[in-house]
Amino acid sequence: MSKISTKINLGNFFEDFQIGQKIVHPLPRTISDGDVSFYIALTGSRFALNSSDLLAQKMGYPKKPLDDLLMFHLTFGKSVQDISLNAIANLGYAEVSFPNPVFVGDTVRLVTEVIGLKENSNGKSGVVYVHSIGYNQDEKEVLNLKRWVMVHKRNKGDMNGINDVPTFAKVQRISSQINIPTLSNIDIDATGGKYFFEDYEEGERLNHAEGITIDNSDHTLATKLYQNNAKVHFDDFMMKSSPMGQRLMYGGHVISIARSISFNGLQNAQWIYSINSGAHSNPTYAGDTIYAFTEVIETINHEREDLGLLRLRTVALKNCRPEDVDTTFDENGKYKKEVVLDLDYTVVIPEKQK
Amino acid sequence: MSKISTKINLGNFFEDFQIGQKIVHPLPRTISDGDVSFYIALTGSRFALNSSDLLAQKMGYPKKPLDDLLMFHLTFGKSVQDISLNAIANLGYAEVSFPNPVFVGDTVRLVTEVIGLKENSNGKSGVVYVHSIGYNQDEKEVLNLKRWVMVHKRNKGDMNGINDVPTFAKVQRISSQINIPTLSNIDIDATGGKYFFEDYEEGERLNHAEGITIDNSDHTLATKLYQNNAKVHFDDFMMKSSPMGQRLMYGGHVISIARSISFNGLQNAQWIYSINSGAHSNPTYAGDTIYAFTEVIETINHEREDLGLLRLRTVALKNCRPEDVDTTFDENGKYKKEVVLDLDYTVVIPEKQK
Amino acid sequence: MSKISTKINLGNFFEDFQIGQKIVHPLPRTISDGDVSFYIALTGSRFALNSSDLLAQKMGYPKKPLDDLLMFHLTFGKSVQDISLNAIANLGYAEVSFPNPVFVGDTVRLVTEVIGLKENSNGKSGVVYVHSIGYNQDEKEVLNLKRWVMVHKRNKGDMNGINDVPTFAKVQRISSQINIPTLSNIDIDATGGKYFFEDYEEGERLNHAEGITIDNSDHTLATKLYQNNAKVHFDDFMMKSSPMGQRLMYGGHVISIARSISFNGLQNAQWIYSINSGAHSNPTYAGDTIYAFTEVIETINHEREDLGLLRLRTVALKNCRPEDVDTTFDENGKYKKEVVLDLDYTVVIPEKQK
Repeated sequence: MSKISTKINLGNFFEDFQIGQKIVHPLPRTISDGDVSFYIALTGSRFALNSSDLLAQKMGYPKKPLDDLLMFHLTFGKSVQDISLNAIANLGYAEVSFPNPVFVGDTVRLVTEVIGLKENSNGKSGVVYVHSIGYNQDEKEVLNLKRWVMVHKRNKGDMNGINDVPTFAKVQRISSQINIPTLSNIDIDATGGKYFFEDYEEGERLNHAEGITIDNSDHTLATKLYQNNAKVHFDDFMMKSSPMGQRLMYGGHVISIARSISFNGLQNAQWIYSINSGAHSNPTYAGDTIYAFTEVIETINHEREDLGLLRLRTVALKNCRPEDVDTTFDENGKYKKEVVLDLDYTVVIPEKQK
Repeated sequence: MSKISTKINLGNFFEDFQIGQKIVHPLPRTISDGDVSFYIALTGSRFALNSSDLLAQKMGYPKKPLDDLLMFHLTFGKSVQDISLNAIANLGYAEVSFPNPVFVGDTVRLVTEVIGLKENSNGKSGVVYVHSIGYNQDEKEVLNLKRWVMVHKRNKGDMNGINDVPTFAKVQRISSQINIPTLSNIDIDATGGKYFFEDYEEGERLNHAEGITIDNSDHTLATKLYQNNAKVHFDDFMMKSSPMGQRLMYGGHVISIARSISFNGLQNAQWIYSINSGAHSNPTYAGDTIYAFTEVIETINHEREDLGLLRLRTVALKNCRPEDVDTTFDENGKYKKEVVLDLDYTVVIPEKQK
Repeated sequence: MSKISTKINLGNFFEDFQIGQKIVHPLPRTISDGDVSFYIALTGSRFALNSSDLLAQKMGYPKKPLDDLLMFHLTFGKSVQDISLNAIANLGYAEVSFPNPVFVGDTVRLVTEVIGLKENSNGKSGVVYVHSIGYNQDEKEVLNLKRWVMVHKRNKGDMNGINDVPTFAKVQRISSQINIPTLSNIDIDATGGKYFFEDYEEGERLNHAEGITIDNSDHTLATKLYQNNAKVHFDDFMMKSSPMGQRLMYGGHVISIARSISFNGLQNAQWIYSINSGAHSNPTYAGDTIYAFTEVIETINHEREDLGLLRLRTVALKNCRPEDVDTTFDENGKYKKEVVLDLDYTVVIPEKQK
């Protein structure tokens, strides 16, 4: 006669969070060359800085740094079991920054503080706002992000008047200090792009040429690699009886695919400075082909003379070419059904070589 | 006019084996970080010891050791072309142990001795019993296993009265010497689990929370990574005209998925001491979602004061949640059709930190 | 109001090429252990030299060299965005050689010269002939190849009488100098093959035993890993409205699968000396099972006493076993529809150990 164990972690519910609570997420991860190869295979990423040690060394790095988004996924994935295992929806990101580069051999970990809580009026769920910081083995910050997720209440119906919503910067402030070596000597034969900071103008729209179809193995391999165990991505048996009818793709994989597609036109924008905000506006499923376009929202001069920043909006589309989408919203102000990602972020790009 | 070559290895038949025969399997393999990343991507494994060099070093290892099952697959895969290419079925395992840890950079190889032979009464096949030992580059044992497989006879109908069946230990004996550093200072924030040896009791059943759906690319990538070339896993054209109608998943992949799912509830049981026996009770195919539950068969005190052992039974299910399965056998004493793996194994787990 | 950017690289058209033009392809790539593991997982390759550092060191290498075809794909992939993004067809290869071994940690890059141009009589397209050389970080040649592709004209209808077709060697000349350490002491227990140069005879045909089914994730992961961005492989939405109706498999992946299958019978032929010519005779799609047979065209003695060369023809078949294909051409002299690859290449194989 077996006795059912209570040792299974079923994830936290809304009532389990308090403002000021600190959560040390398990699973520090030593990043390896295998992770880097996987990321290239999963996304087709072609940014040269993350591809060649020689090139990175010419640019002043000890060796090639990790793609910022790979580091994001490997670090962020650890928070799922504590924060969003019972999430109904990932509602948003803000103030995501990448303070220091990460290299193969580094060990990263993530710590989170609860910074806001709000009950939903239906009594069934609430919104949890968190601030997470990723550290490397030297306790240097490698990721700093805020996000908010809607999670189930354990006890539906209880209303306690919790309504403590933090405010977020609409756009990450640009620091005078940027942890990138002096950018001289950019080899455009190696990066594949001849355009620099001065070449871009506000309002310019890049309709990226490539489309990438994602299959079930791709996005589930990605999410398992990141040790992100959100059930909606893996459990087709469960999802078949959900309204979606199938596994939902990890939104972070869509961000990575969009970033990879944006290479064509932004080859020299090899550093993500910040993610200002992001919306997974519609679900993505296996078999969908992702396209993307990018709008230059703002060109930002920096006191460093070797680089500038571009605030960009990259929109990912499913089964629809960017040329065929003029506006992303329908007449009711809702995202069109083919728009799967609306990402506001800032990249660093070298100035023209003098 | 071409002449058909006889250089193709068609695998061994029952008549090709003799008791006492030694087989050195080809393909020594240097294990790399790429293999480790692949294993995480294929299984979603989250055991902390295999994930972080820093954590492993705090525990007394030079760096993170390989997941025991990854080492098993990489080593075991080499025996397929000599032992089981013409296998009708993998009938069982026994006395599987992991005497020494394996690290990235090690080169492993496998040697097998035939220890038993038994003709089947139908005259068409027989059972071959083997004892395989895996070695690292220093000739240290890293794997020790016995298994038996049913293989075709070359000459159907010949009966020679061969009936030499070895006996196996039902459960691997626990040695007083265990090659694990002294387990002090377990960081439960890093491992993600707060339960230790003393917390588990015999008869306790853990219904693991996660389910993982496996697609064709997942299990075929796994099996190719292990250089296991059993045709049933790869050749859909051949399998379409078999009773199965499609590619059969490598049973070892199901073991790994079940072990990965068992993390939730057994986070600190980071070492497999032995596999006592295992049955692939029903086939698994692409699209199946694997769930698992684990029963604690026995709690085993060890003379070392820092650790104990748990003899576990992990049962993997397809397309059926563990809560919905009370017993694994039907009224005729046969495995229910949703039960795909019945694994009896022993793990090492730290005692509570004093 | 957004302004459509002209910064998107839409690839070169026939008019963009001139004879003598040199193209430095972007994306130097530092090759990692992750790439090697991926290649094994994607192809199931079992050549021992590329699998074990210990074995490679016994043979005189500093460590295991890269599989020649993996190096080919990683280097060749870089040329797609400049040469064949608008290709209608990859028409052929010639004089492909592998002058020096490549190791994990090396950084490879590719440079191409246009050596021929020919307008097609339809006025819509032309053939571009190129000579590409891959270099490692020490500027040593690691790949040398010629190929020709049919590309679209930008301005259909213009005819300029361009007809400058180079000639190619039918078979790569064998150099007296071969960059392989002295082959003594071949360990057939490790390589898995007992046949040496002297054992093969002209006209011998090896019907390889294994078949491998390829799924969409496999070939798209491969092609993304190689940073080859040819749209036909990735964009199912686009391909659904093409005559093919689905994504086309990268022909290089078929070469690798065929080479992997050819292991059984050619275990000691661990070095590709040259690819003399290759035809992708029919398309391959996800779900196809690849089989292969190999004919020994010529046995080539070399002045080195430790090795010889075999000129081989490996034919890959889809959904058809090699035993069931006698000739590869139909009564009209066209490739039978099940023949997907006809590869003429030369391998190095040790002579019998004296």
